[in-house]
Amino acid sequence: MEPLFVVKIGGNVIDDEPKLGTFLEAFGRIRGHKILVHGGGKLATTLAGKLGIAQQMEEGRRITDGETLKVVTMVYAGLINKVIVAKLQAAGCNAMGLCGADGNAILAHRRVHATTDYGMVGDVDLVSRPVFEHLLAQSDTLVVAPITHDGRGQLLNTNADTIAQEIARAMSPAYATRLIYCFEKAGVLEDAADESTCISRISPLRYESLKGHQKIFAGMIPKLDNAFEALKSGVKQVRIGRAEDLENLVGGTSGTLITLEE
Amino acid sequence: MEPLFVVKIGGNVIDDEPKLGTFLEAFGRIRGHKILVHGGGKLATTLAGKLGIAQQMEEGRRITDGETLKVVTMVYAGLINKVIVAKLQAAGCNAMGLCGADGNAILAHRRVHATTDYGMVGDVDLVSRPVFEHLLAQSDTLVVAPITHDGRGQLLNTNADTIAQEIARAMSPAYATRLIYCFEKAGVLEDAADESTCISRISPLRYESLKGHQKIFAGMIPKLDNAFEALKSGVKQVRIGRAEDLENLVGGTSGTLITLEE
Repeated sequence: MEPLFVVKIGGNVIDDEPKLGTFLEAFGRIRGHKILVHGGGKLATTLAGKLGIAQQMEEGRRITDGETLKVVTMVYAGLINKVIVAKLQAAGCNAMGLCGADGNAILAHRRVHATTDYGMVGDVDLVSRPVFEHLLAQSDTLVVAPITHDGRGQLLNTNADTIAQEIARAMSPAYATRLIYCFEKAGVLEDAADESTCISRISPLRYESLKGHQKIFAGMIPKLDNAFEALKSGVKQVRIGRAEDLENLVGGTSGTLITLEE
Repeated sequence: MEPLFVVKIGGNVIDDEPKLGTFLEAFGRIRGHKILVHGGGKLATTLAGKLGIAQQMEEGRRITDGETLKVVTMVYAGLINKVIVAKLQAAGCNAMGLCGADGNAILAHRRVHATTDYGMVGDVDLVSRPVFEHLLAQSDTLVVAPITHDGRGQLLNTNADTIAQEIARAMSPAYATRLIYCFEKAGVLEDAADESTCISRISPLRYESLKGHQKIFAGMIPKLDNAFEALKSGVKQVRIGRAEDLENLVGGTSGTLITLEE
């Protein structure tokens, strides 16, 4: 099977123009098929602020009313997506940008939650492998904004980590898919305050042991749970590490490898 | 050759939600391959106003400084493009949205002008037929936002009429391409104040005669010049008419037909 890298970047890279430039140059150098999933960074919050649209967060998720949906659609699917595509094109990488509504690439439904109305927030139902395969046959690089749709005309704000994971899962039957989560740390740390405590490899047994000894920072637990889930559904490899270190994350010499093998 | 419709809509449809809905239903019913090119309407001006970014127009074109480019990229390539795509998907039409940077679909250069600095405004150099053909093979409907790039990382604000014309020209060797410009009038009018004076057919001789008798509204002249240019470069047919009347424009029973045949 052909290799495919699915890479997720978040706000710490997107908000920092020189950092983003360096990251995209390294990303553009990955050979063959690759999909970049980007979050939104602080730009959406800043724009909403300037427009006087109050922002409400619930467990790290943005409550997305109608006006906020317009803001995130503009910022994620418009500005950030197209700036990234233009920069990759300049680096000689033939990138194509899209959101989940385009070509019906990612179908979602509005989140149902017992106590919180998240508004126009989507949970993914289906990533269309044929759509991504067809696009990858033309452009070896895709850039995905975290906006999906429900097929009935409603755009939905969707978590970028989840989108990266769902794309990786959907592509796994056809590609040897490696999923890389980039964030602001060197990897999963034993001591969140000490970058030198980066754990190089986490298997299920090690994960249980680390959790048992409270050695995993609470914020990492959903990421790691998702990583193991992705591996169980066929993703070949998951790695977590620092965006600035992409080349070594791709090469396998940096960050934390999440693996099912003991 | 397979038929292809290239349809341009402007602000009067985009700014009016019910009108846009009706238009998109009619557009979605066009059988086979179709490309919708949209302008931006008043939304970009409104957003720039709310953000305190002064807007300057020069002969109907927006002077595009760096902040204004961000606004038009957000509004055109983000909000309007994705709202249209989601609505078309809901109407059972598998639409895919893009701007000129995506897949290197439309390459442009920053406008050079003797007296006016238009800022980040692009003039089209090349529409890639292979990119559009490949996308049309997957999604029979494409939705194009009037943002292009220069291949060196710079996004450029580009006139949507011109983009529609350039796409139609580029596709003509491979498709029987018909170009439809939708606007707020029934077609080209002999008397701009009287909708009943719509001219059903304009050939080059008729055009010269109408111009000689000052029967053509000045604002229409660039549109008609462009239409004749498109026909000379292989576009099969150009028609100008009212957006609400799309079905009859497609059917050939409404609006003004521009033709090289006397």
